[in-house]
Amino acid sequence: MLRVVLAFGLGAALEVLLGWLLKRRRASLSTASEVIFFPSRVTCTEELLAGAPCVCPLPHGESALGRLLVRVLEARRSLDLCLFAFSSPQLGRAVLLLHSRGVRIRLVVDADYMALRGSQVGPLRRAGIPVRHDQDQGYMHHKFAIVDKKVLITGSLNWTTQAIQTNQENVLVVEDQAVVNIFLEEFEKIWENYNPANYTFFSKHEKTGIENAQS
Amino acid sequence: MLRVVLAFGLGAALEVLLGWLLKRRRASLSTASEVIFFPSRVTCTEELLAGAPCVCPLPHGESALGRLLVRVLEARRSLDLCLFAFSSPQLGRAVLLLHSRGVRIRLVVDADYMALRGSQVGPLRRAGIPVRHDQDQGYMHHKFAIVDKKVLITGSLNWTTQAIQTNQENVLVVEDQAVVNIFLEEFEKIWENYNPANYTFFSKHEKTGIENAQS
Repeated sequence: MLRVVLAFGLGAALEVLLGWLLKRRRASLSTASEVIFFPSRVTCTEELLAGAPCVCPLPHGESALGRLLVRVLEARRSLDLCLFAFSSPQLGRAVLLLHSRGVRIRLVVDADYMALRGSQVGPLRRAGIPVRHDQDQGYMHHKFAIVDKKVLITGSLNWTTQAIQTNQENVLVVEDQAVVNIFLEEFEKIWENYNPANYTFFSKHEKTGIENAQS
Repeated sequence: MLRVVLAFGLGAALEVLLGWLLKRRRASLSTASEVIFFPSRVTCTEELLAGAPCVCPLPHGESALGRLLVRVLEARRSLDLCLFAFSSPQLGRAVLLLHSRGVRIRLVVDADYMALRGSQVGPLRRAGIPVRHDQDQGYMHHKFAIVDKKVLITGSLNWTTQAIQTNQENVLVVEDQAVVNIFLEEFEKIWENYNPANYTFFSKHEKTGIENAQS
């Protein structure tokens, strides 16, 4: 009799454990990633950025940009940005807001695109956010952000109003720590490669030319 | 005594089960996704594309482009491509190869970029692959591929030699069926929206102009 009871007990315990583990797995899958497609409908983002209800004539409610802003604004400790182009005023405000809250922000951009019209690079730099850029012939074409070293936001979307409002784009939010770590490592590598201490102000060819002219 | 033995037995069974589940979880995580960073070193891709060893003077061995080609060439039934720009000759050959094997290929591109230098769109279209493009003001800026409706290849990389060889880029290979399904749904939506039957050859404004002129 005791054996039967214990066997039943074991079975029930296993079932509960399995159910709990599978539920956890499902829950982790469903929250592990989010996909946001653009173009975004134009909505008021004041409530997200100013933290107070807004009565402006723009539509209020969910939008792709709103969902992206929510994800970015979740940063509490760090935000590592690696962006080909960054001119969206709403995303610029979100980054400034995080900076004012003490979140440690680092920004990598492409040298050729950092002075595009409406670029957020100047305002962010003036606010004290460290910015680094490439010095290569190719583009620094990534479009990813890492929130608190735990959440990766990546995809095809450049952080520009044109892309947000008119392009077909995708943004993937990844919470798989293994994938986040791979991007973190790449970010650190790029951050170090683009250290101003490593900049060269003449190409090797030009240098040789100068040396030749002097010799 | 029996109680003690059964308690130990229960403990051991739980340990084995937990170990197995955690191992499965780790295994599924490690095969769930692959991250490929660019620029790619230039290597010979003949072995992948022609299926025979090659003795050309190019370096042979692994490269980012090689890893991407391997993932694309895994298609057995279908390949759905949604690409802003497609001019890489190696990736073009890979798609033609799959087409010749009977893989069902669909290609969506951006109208403004489909005639760029070295575009693969013409050759693929002439080979009988259906191609659709946007008619919008914004760009069709996605850069994703879905292999056999089971694997998503997405990221910042346009399928061009310049991007492959000189840019800082990322490609994410996702095997999470929930995420793949979301992109599949978006692909089908775009494919239907860009159906030539839906094309309009005059904007509404122009049409109104004509009607006004005729009235």
